[in-house]
Order: sequence, then C-alpha cells, then structure tokens
Amino acid sequence: MHKNWFIEEDHYSSSHYHHKETVFTIGNGYFSSRGSFEEGFSDEIATTFVHGVFNDVPTFGTELVNFPKWYSLAIILGDEPFRMDSGKILFYQRQLNLGNGLLTRKLFWESPKGSRLKITFERFMNMADVHHGALRFSIESDNYQGKIRVLSDIPGYVTNERYQHWSIIDQGYISEHGCYLTLQTLDTGIEAALAQKTRLEFSHEVMLQYWHARTVPTLAFEIEVEKGDMVTGVKHCAIYTSRESDRPLEEAVDDVNQRFSEGFDTTLGKSEDVWKNLWDRSDVSIEGDDLADQALRYNLFQILIAAPRHDDTVSIGAKTMSGYGYRGHVFWDTEIFILPFLIFTQPEIARNLLMYRYHTLGGARQKAIDNGYKGAMFAWESAATGEEVTPTWVEGPDGELVRVWCGDIEQHITADVAYAVLQYWQVTGDDDFMVNFGTEIFLSAAQFYTSRLEWEETTDTYHIRNIIGPDEYHEHVDDNAFTNLMARWVLEEASEIKCWMKTSSPDRFFDLLNRINLTEEEIASWPLIAEKLAVRVRSDGVIEQFDGYFNLKYLNLTSLEPREQSLQRLFGIEGVQEYQFLKQPDVIMAQYLLRNRFDPQQIIQNLAYYTPRTDLSQGSSLGPSIQALMLARYGDIGQAETLFKKTLLTDLDNNRGNTPDGIHAASAGAVWKVVFFGFLGFNTQNSTPQVNPKLPERWKRVRLKIRWKNKPISFDINE
Amino acid sequence: MHKNWFIEEDHYSSSHYHHKETVFTIGNGYFSSRGSFEEGFSDEIATTFVHGVFNDVPTFGTELVNFPKWYSLAIILGDEPFRMDSGKILFYQRQLNLGNGLLTRKLFWESPKGSRLKITFERFMNMADVHHGALRFSIESDNYQGKIRVLSDIPGYVTNERYQHWSIIDQGYISEHGCYLTLQTLDTGIEAALAQKTRLEFSHEVMLQYWHARTVPTLAFEIEVEKGDMVTGVKHCAIYTSRESDRPLEEAVDDVNQRFSEGFDTTLGKSEDVWKNLWDRSDVSIEGDDLADQALRYNLFQILIAAPRHDDTVSIGAKTMSGYGYRGHVFWDTEIFILPFLIFTQPEIARNLLMYRYHTLGGARQKAIDNGYKGAMFAWESAATGEEVTPTWVEGPDGELVRVWCGDIEQHITADVAYAVLQYWQVTGDDDFMVNFGTEIFLSAAQFYTSRLEWEETTDTYHIRNIIGPDEYHEHVDDNAFTNLMARWVLEEASEIKCWMKTSSPDRFFDLLNRINLTEEEIASWPLIAEKLAVRVRSDGVIEQFDGYFNLKYLNLTSLEPREQSLQRLFGIEGVQEYQFLKQPDVIMAQYLLRNRFDPQQIIQNLAYYTPRTDLSQGSSLGPSIQALMLARYGDIGQAETLFKKTLLTDLDNNRGNTPDGIHAASAGAVWKVVFFGFLGFNTQNSTPQVNPKLPERWKRVRLKIRWKNKPISFDINE
Repeated sequence: MHKNWFIEEDHYSSSHYHHKETVFTIGNGYFSSRGSFEEGFSDEIATTFVHGVFNDVPTFGTELVNFPKWYSLAIILGDEPFRMDSGKILFYQRQLNLGNGLLTRKLFWESPKGSRLKITFERFMNMADVHHGALRFSIESDNYQGKIRVLSDIPGYVTNERYQHWSIIDQGYISEHGCYLTLQTLDTGIEAALAQKTRLEFSHEVMLQYWHARTVPTLAFEIEVEKGDMVTGVKHCAIYTSRESDRPLEEAVDDVNQRFSEGFDTTLGKSEDVWKNLWDRSDVSIEGDDLADQALRYNLFQILIAAPRHDDTVSIGAKTMSGYGYRGHVFWDTEIFILPFLIFTQPEIARNLLMYRYHTLGGARQKAIDNGYKGAMFAWESAATGEEVTPTWVEGPDGELVRVWCGDIEQHITADVAYAVLQYWQVTGDDDFMVNFGTEIFLSAAQFYTSRLEWEETTDTYHIRNIIGPDEYHEHVDDNAFTNLMARWVLEEASEIKCWMKTSSPDRFFDLLNRINLTEEEIASWPLIAEKLAVRVRSDGVIEQFDGYFNLKYLNLTSLEPREQSLQRLFGIEGVQEYQFLKQPDVIMAQYLLRNRFDPQQIIQNLAYYTPRTDLSQGSSLGPSIQALMLARYGDIGQAETLFKKTLLTDLDNNRGNTPDGIHAASAGAVWKVVFFGFLGFNTQNSTPQVNPKLPERWKRVRLKIRWKNKPISFDINE
Repeated sequence: MHKNWFIEEDHYSSSHYHHKETVFTIGNGYFSSRGSFEEGFSDEIATTFVHGVFNDVPTFGTELVNFPKWYSLAIILGDEPFRMDSGKILFYQRQLNLGNGLLTRKLFWESPKGSRLKITFERFMNMADVHHGALRFSIESDNYQGKIRVLSDIPGYVTNERYQHWSIIDQGYISEHGCYLTLQTLDTGIEAALAQKTRLEFSHEVMLQYWHARTVPTLAFEIEVEKGDMVTGVKHCAIYTSRESDRPLEEAVDDVNQRFSEGFDTTLGKSEDVWKNLWDRSDVSIEGDDLADQALRYNLFQILIAAPRHDDTVSIGAKTMSGYGYRGHVFWDTEIFILPFLIFTQPEIARNLLMYRYHTLGGARQKAIDNGYKGAMFAWESAATGEEVTPTWVEGPDGELVRVWCGDIEQHITADVAYAVLQYWQVTGDDDFMVNFGTEIFLSAAQFYTSRLEWEETTDTYHIRNIIGPDEYHEHVDDNAFTNLMARWVLEEASEIKCWMKTSSPDRFFDLLNRINLTEEEIASWPLIAEKLAVRVRSDGVIEQFDGYFNLKYLNLTSLEPREQSLQRLFGIEGVQEYQFLKQPDVIMAQYLLRNRFDPQQIIQNLAYYTPRTDLSQGSSLGPSIQALMLARYGDIGQAETLFKKTLLTDLDNNRGNTPDGIHAASAGAVWKVVFFGFLGFNTQNSTPQVNPKLPERWKRVRLKIRWKNKPISFDINE
C-alpha cells in the first residue's frame, strides 16, 4: 500500500504522549480506544468509549463512560515490569494503517537492569464484528534469560478523569483461557460485559493461572525464556452492553469464543474487507500533494471509526470518541460539518445520525416546552435523550466560574438539523426516511421558530432577540444573521416539503399534522412570516451580523500578531463583545449553506468584509474549513489552500494545542467538504450533479466518489 | 465486662446498613474505618481515613482520602461468594467492645444453593501500634463439602464517593504470605503503603497463591472442606504514609512482619492495655441509668478513636473520620465542643489539637491578609494547611446552588481557638505550651479582632458588621452578640496573658512581639477598645443577638410541630432571616463560655427568652448539648435530661437522619461537658476545682476523673 495510507511515529516523546494517544485512536463505529500503550504509562489518558453509554457527572450533566482497557497487557521480566517510562528505548516505531485500522508498535527495550527485549504489539477493532477487538504481541529476548510473566487482564479500576461511573457486578473464568467482567453504570443502569481470551505460543512450557482478583480478573502466563527465544500471543476481547442485548455477558462470551477460534489473521481479514468497502466509497485521493492526500485520508478515517453503522440512536460527538473533550456531547458540528461527507459517501450511516435526532425529538420538544415555545427545540449539546446537556457554568482559564449561555440561547442548531435532513433527502432521494421521520423533524423545527419569533408591530417585522450565533464572541445579540437566515429558510422550505408529502403520502401527512398539532393553514402562513424576518443588508450588499454589529469597534487583527490566545482570552468575555471580531464565519457560513440564494458578487463582498474580522488562527476550530471552502470558490485559491492545510493538520499537528482532548470532529469531517464543494465546486443546478474544479497549484489529480440518488458517481479530475 | 461496655446489633437490616457502618466505626487516632463488611456489600460506604491525608476535590476544595479497605476478605464456596446481600441470614450478631475496640460479627448463613456456614469476623485497629489493624475470622461448614477459596487482598480500586484520589505506584509479594500496595495522592503527592500478611489454619492441606493482579495484590487460599470442618485465619495489615516516614513501604512491611509474628491475641492484648489507660482517665460511669451510661461511653469512644495521640499537625473533623460529611474539615466544634473532654482527661491529646492550630497559623495569617486584616484569622473550615476550605457554593436540597458565606464571615472561630488555648492552660498549667505556642495564637487572634473592628465616630463605639454568628439562620448581621462578647473577652484576656508572659519569660515575650509585629502599647490599648465594643442589652438583661434582632417576627415554634425539617428548610434561606428563630443557642452559648462574667439571674432571663426561639429539634446538632448544660444549671433538670438523652443518641439512634455521613463529633464530645459542667456543676472559683451536682432523678451515682494541673482528681457523686 502506498505510504499515504499510513500514519507513522518514529520517535517517542513522553511530552507528546497525550497528543499521540488521540492521533492513534482506533475504532469501529461501536466502540473506540485511544492510542494508549497496552502495558500502561504514567499519566495516560486511556479511554475506551462505547456509543450511547452515558452516565451522570457533575458540571457536564452526562458523559460517555470510560470502559476498562480491553487491550491491557503486562509483561514482567523477573521482577521488572516492561514500561516505556522506565529503562531505555533503543528502537521505537508506531504505525497506523488507515486501510484496515491496524495499530502497530515495535520496539527494542532495555530494562533498568539491562535486559533487552524486542516487543511488537498489533491491535485493531473489528469492523466486521463491532463488538470485537484483538491484540497480537510478540516478545523476543535479546539477552535476557529467566522468567517472563504475561498478565492479560480486564482492569475494572477505571474512571473518567478521576470520576467513577461503574459498579462492578461480577467476574469469572471462561474455559479455556478466558475471563469476564460485568459492570453497571451507577446512574443510568447500563450493564456492560467484557469477555476476553488469551493464548500464548511458546516452544517450551507455558504455565497459566486464572486470578479471580477483585475487580481485575486476570489470566497469568509464566514462561522461562533463554536468550533468543521468541514468544507470541493473542488477546481477543468482546464487549456487549444492555443497550443492544438482553444478555450482554452471554453474547460477549459467545462472541469472544468465536473470534478466538477464528484467530487474529482471519478476524483482521474480515475487518479489512469491511474497510475496503468503506474506502471504496469514501476515499479521496490527491495526487501531487502527498501530505494533503495522507492527512485528508487520516481525517476521514477518524470520522469512519466514529460513525455508528449499526445504531441509529447515537451520533458523533464533537470530539468523536477519542477523548474527554465535550464529554461525548453532540453539537451542530455533526449536521453541518460531518454529515455532508457521510450523506454523499455513506448515506446509510448518515441516515443513522439523522435518526438519532428523530429519536431525541422527545428531549427537543421538552426543551421547547420548558422555554415556552412550540415544536422541537434541539439541544445545543445533546447526549442520550436529546435533553439539553450544555453545562451552565464551567471553570474558566483562571479558575473563575464562567456562565455558558449556549444551552439557553444558541438556537441555530434546530435549523442546522433541518438543513441536514433536507440535504440527505436531496442527495439520497430516500423518500421513505422523509415520509416517516424527516418531515416530522423539519416541520417540528419550523414550528419552533414560528413560536420563537417576536413580532414588532410598528415595523411589521419579525425578530429573534437575545441570541448567540455561530460567532460565540457575541452573546445576547438581536437578529443574528445566520440564525435568522436559516430560520427563514426553514420556514420557506417547509412549504415545499408539505406540498411534496401531501401529494405523495396524504394519509401519513395528515396523521403527522394531527400528531404534532399543526394545521395546513399554519404552514401556508410561514413563507409570509419568513419574508418579514429581519435581516439587515447594507447598500453594498454586506449583511450585518446582528443588530448593531456595524457600530462595534474595528481593530486590525494583524496588529495583534503573533498571538497564541483567542481574542476572547485576550480581551475577556465582556471585552471582546465590544469589537467586530468573529470567533468563526457567521454570515459567510450562512452564505455557504444557502449559496444558491445569494448572488456571487454579494458573497464576494461579504467575504471581503468579514475575513479580516475573523479569528481564524485562535477562534473556533470550525472556522478555517468554511473559510477555505468559500475562498476556493470566491476568493484566493492560495489562501484557501493554506487554510485547508491548517484544517487537515488540526489534529495530526495538534495545531490548536488541545488535541489531547480528542479529535476535532467538525474539522475532520469538513476537510471533505472543502475538497468537494470548494476545490471541486460541486453543485446541483437543476438537480444535475456537476463540478467546476479550481484546484491548488500542486494538485495533479483528484479522485473522489459519491452516491447520488443511491447510484455511484466517480469524479476524476486532472489538471 | 458490664453490658454497658458493648454496643450490639442483633438484627440485620440493609436499610440501616449505612447508619450502622458509621456506628460501628473503629480507629486508633491514626486511622479509622467504618463498620463495613469484610466481604463487601452493595452500595457500601466503606471508608478508611488516615489523619492528615488530604487531596484536592471539586466543590469542597480538599478532603480526607479514602484508603484501600485493609480488612477486605472474600470467602467463596465453589462458585458462590459469601455476601450478606445474597442467600439467607439464619443468625446475625454484631458487637463493638468499647473497652478494647474489638468489632465482632457472627453469623450463620445459607447460600443461594443451600450451603450453610457459620462465620465469625473480629477486627480491631491497634492502639499500641497505630499503623496496624488485624482481622481474625473463622469459617465452619454446617452442610457444605467442597472447595472454599479465601481471597485476602488489598483492593486498590477505591474512590471518595466516586472521586479518585490515588494513583497506584507499585505492588508485590512479601514472603511469607504477604503482599503490599503503594499509592500516591494525585494532587498533594502523599505516598502511602499498605502491607498485609494472612495465614489460614486448617487441619488439611491449604493451597496458597499470590496473585499479582493490577491494582489488587491478592493472597488466594484454597481448601477442601467436609461437613463440620472449621478453618480459621488472621489478616494483619500495616499502613504508613510519607507524612510520617521517608520510607513508608519498608516501615509497613517491617511493621506487619512484627505484628504477624506476635499474633492476633498478643497484639489485641497490647492494644487493650492502651485502651485501659485511656479509659482509666476518661471513663464516666452513671449508675441508675444504663442507657445513659452506655451511650455516654460510646460517644467518648468515638472521640478517643478519632483523637490524634501521636501527631500534632492534625485535628478532629466535624464528623471525626467516620464518614464523608464535611470531608474531614475541622470547625469550631473541636475547640468548643470536643476539647474540654480532652483537656480535662487527656491533656496530651488536647495539646496536639491545639498545636494543629499553631501549625496552621500560616494559613490563618494568609486569610487575614487576603481579607485586609491583621493577625491570625482562622479558617471556618480548616484542613491540612489552615487555609480557608469552606466551599463557596454547595448544592441545596432541591439541586439549586446555594452560596455558603461561613468561610467569608463566620468569624467567631478565631476567638473559639483562643478560648480553648486559655482553657487548656488554666486546666493543665502547661506554661511551656503557653510560652512557646499558646501566647502567639492568643495575641494573633486579638490582633485579628482589633483590625476587624469598625469604629463609629458619632457614638465612639466599635462594631463588627456583616457577620454570621453561631446562629447561622441569620447571615450578614451586625454586632452578633456571641462574636462581640468573645472578641471582647479575647482583647481583655490578652492583657492578662501579656502580663504573665512578660513577667515569667520576658525575652521570649519581646521576641514574640517583634516576630508578630506587635507592641506593648497596642496590647495596653485593647481593654479600652473592648469596653467600647457594642453589645446591646435590654433593661431586663436580655442581650440582643444582633443589631435589629428584637424587631424580627416572632412565631411560636410549637405551632409548627410536629415537623421533620429545619426552620431554614421550611421558611427558606431568605425567609427564615425574617424571624427570631435560632439555629442553635447563640447568646446562651456565649453565656455558657463566659459564665463567670454573668449574673445568674441574667443568664436565667436570657435562657427564658431564647429557649422558645431555638430550633433544638431540627436546627444544629450542636444546640441540644449546650441547651441541656445550661438548663441543668439554670433551668429545669428534667428538660436538661431530655436534651442530654437526645444528644447521647444522636448517632446511636440516627436521630438527625444523617449519621450515615459520619459521627456528629461536636455532639459526641459535648456529652461529657453536659455531665461535667452541667449535672456536676464543675467550677473553679478562686482556682479551686469544685462541683455542685444537680443530677437527673434516676441517677444514683456518677464517677468521673479529671486531671487538674497534671494531677488526677476523682469525683464520685452519690445522690
């Protein structure tokens, strides 16, 4: 395979350990594990998350629960445990194969007492059986002779950054060479079972004991090695929870028994077959720019391992499942930044993510009621139930308490969900989804906005006051352009959808209206309301980001360079509101989403106006991708490429400094959008998919496939 | 031994499990463990705390850290683990021997599959070697034959109510039949070592393995039993930390080796010898009222096991070390409610507790500086360093955030500490303490109050405004009588102390003045200031609790009976402030502490006025004891006895409902005061100790010893 299918690390540094733990995250759409070392490491952040397994936690309300480290393995030479934070590393190499998700670590290690071993670990999380992960290892003695113990355990002592979510229920032995642990989340009562089997292959005797130690069932192997001896082994593990099974322990045991008898290579092969199918649909290759080619693939890999293929009640969190950041909560990042890639290449998965919103309509309706509105008011941060789980207060950088208003008044999320529903439908033609689920989401979203609007009698206009737009530097503003433009769009499109569904499925349509307490007349009134929703446009076409924005102070951003802090940190939460700075594109974002509704000249005007005011270096990690995309179409291709590279390397280079908290999922998903909508210039004039490429200079050839109305289309662009 | 030396439980109920875990807490002044079951229990609150081992935690700032359960032991019949929450309990008895701290549990248990065992556990925490605890157990098969496994482990998976404080450092085997675990607190970096050795005695073969399972080193014993077979065993454990040792692991291993070779009976015997000495000084016997006799002894037992005998850098927390309540923080409870018992019966321990305040002067001085004052401003809640650790916000009963002001403005604590210093000195005549430490505390306290006072020019009076007194129902009041009376007393007594020290140790005296930046002239001015400190007294002698108190609403408390909520909960935090209700005696408390300064008739007047306004049933648990004491001297002896009984049974009967959070230390210590100062009427007119008994009707004889100026005095009162 070409080298652009691999991510490698040749040098080991403890200071980058947490960054690389995130980078080397693997998964299979059911569960996901960071790239922590099998044997443990001081201060490691070794998370394994399973989709949908949330539990209560202070401050954040609810969070994905860290599971026991299924790939845990200890190697002990005499009385010296192998650990990379002791002894010497004589050779080190880590490699992630993006083609099949295999994570390999090879090293040559000298113990503090001078014993040298060659050790290899290979692990993967099975795409063909998502409950299964496997670890293969080999240990070769260079100069050591004596006892080696290999402990293959299920370490039940696991917390989320010190916070305990599990009670241990039971543990025991599985013949031959296996053990299990069952646990239950303390508040949500979700049961989980981990079963593992381990085998050691060695030319001489292998002694094996099962240790029924409290909370840590362990298979303990003991061998006597001579210099030059090599021992190999494999550990298979299966995880089931009560979310998908009535008898998780039995299923985990059955599963691990089957995978164990199939063996490492066979299970890896089957997993690789699934990967081949995934990449066959989703890969993008860029010739002429190896870095872009490799980094793009890496970003898509991270989306593919986080995307639930078999569960439509979960979604992708803002940090995928690769770290503690945002606690597994789902934001608009999913619908606006990640979904396009999946809608166009893996529509079945995209449908699962949209179904998550359908299943959480209960929480969204409750939020609307709690706030005095109608319809569905989606949570700014959403978890298992769709209830609002944005923390109200968080600790600021100086230890002070900061009030977070997004859960209260960042309300464009509902339009974003509606937008994704329509985009999915338009690309896939999945009428079944639209009849049964999509229309309900869409009309419920429209209902919310109509109840949210405030009518001003004197001017006969509608307003959305006290809001936060995508530009979160400005809180409690009136008539945020993004929110109003999107709300207006929802109200207008609702009529189209109504018309279609009433025609094609009238019975279902009227059933739905009754169920959500809506009338045809109401829907008919929406376009008139939409027309009167305030959006302020200057004579030169520049849209005012919110009421009064033009009156704020202007400061040349370049005068502050170089800086390593966001403008909010520099000026303070209150201070930054006095300036025209944006945390991320806001008007431009709306113009991207609704680009067919704007004259290109107006987009260019707005881009010229807002770009120098946007904190692209230290603001939101969501900013550079959209900016790159819009520049590729309406601005300078070189600048577009620079921002695209920045987006590509967000996590590989940890260029925002917080990759240890997890992958920037929006950024990872958005790279595809930049290529597809930006450099390739995809559009669907008159429902015909077409491209209009403007490639960066170095790019020789770009190949990309999509599915359009359930049929494949390949693009192969040479320049 | 007489039955009043035992606390027994004959009936087992899972609904009282947490209450009884607290009741059956044992300890030895170094560490302390709740009465949780050796084998574990669902939802158990199994804490083991070691004095001074604090770590950071959200909300509470810092808290005592829960240690691994040193007495953990699992018994497994075939595949059935023995647990009291499964199978049937055919007989059950638990007994705490107050004479030697031995906690015994006997039971006859039938497993779910019908196997019956007689099991006995006995454990104690060694008073003669405070790093040591031991567990003896016996298992007798009634009808079971087959394999029994006994797992004696150190379970490193331990949290404080879900919050993790430890990282595991190392673990290993100790020959013969032992293992160890070393840990370190995550923020404060305190290292701890636990070493244990276990022996099983059985007539047939005993198989033993050491399991080096991650975080849970385990000694695994296996035997084959026939019906009627009996097996016995003993587990010894030693704990050392880096607070008292440079090599905690080595010391723990040495210790456990020694105790293990001495054996259970010998070590228990040595511990009992220490207990005999403790009780010889501290016991109070009441003939004619068995319940009072037994309950009083139980309360004193709980103080004795919490009192640090070998460490003068720690103190007794408001819940001793018997639960999570108040996180091990130290309040005025120690100086005012607990210390008198220790000053009069165990002055060496009392000295340790006062030295804790001396060692935390740094924190108290910093708090003064941070608040713009001088001298030492002791923390309302104090932990390792003396810095203020009162939480600023806590969650209220309905989940809302409640601002806690005590850490900011409950400022009588500094006078309370000074009061205890003087009481200790007067009772013990420990001039050495006073010269080296006590005077510094006292003068620093006086310095604080002089800087805290606000002078009102128009009236030429001093005031302490914006304060909370002991009656915490009223926040932000001006001139709280208790605070002002105590501050006045401190300023007046400072002159006496100055006079004494200047005469007896002039060099040390002037050194001290230089060191704390104080002059003789300043001290000389204090009595004049004290005289002008506002205390409002009505013409009938009733002291106004604070400025404006008399104008608050009056409500007859009996009109609200029966009630199960505090008045604060009933009326709300704001609402209760409009009424004259008290959370606990405030003026009366001051009159108790400064009783020689008040005319008895005035005390009777105040008692008559404030008693019907005090929430004695659901207010502070500190209230009933002082009320009982004052009623015994100045009121109705029957009422005094009723409130005394209530105090005695606070934890044995869980009569405030929160004993699961830990022993009410103030209440436990105060029972001795009620007997000694209340019913016996101890006083020291002209420095001659004397009593003036007024005993409850049933009491036939009371015997009590004190130490006065380092000499024993026995009181034996017959009525």
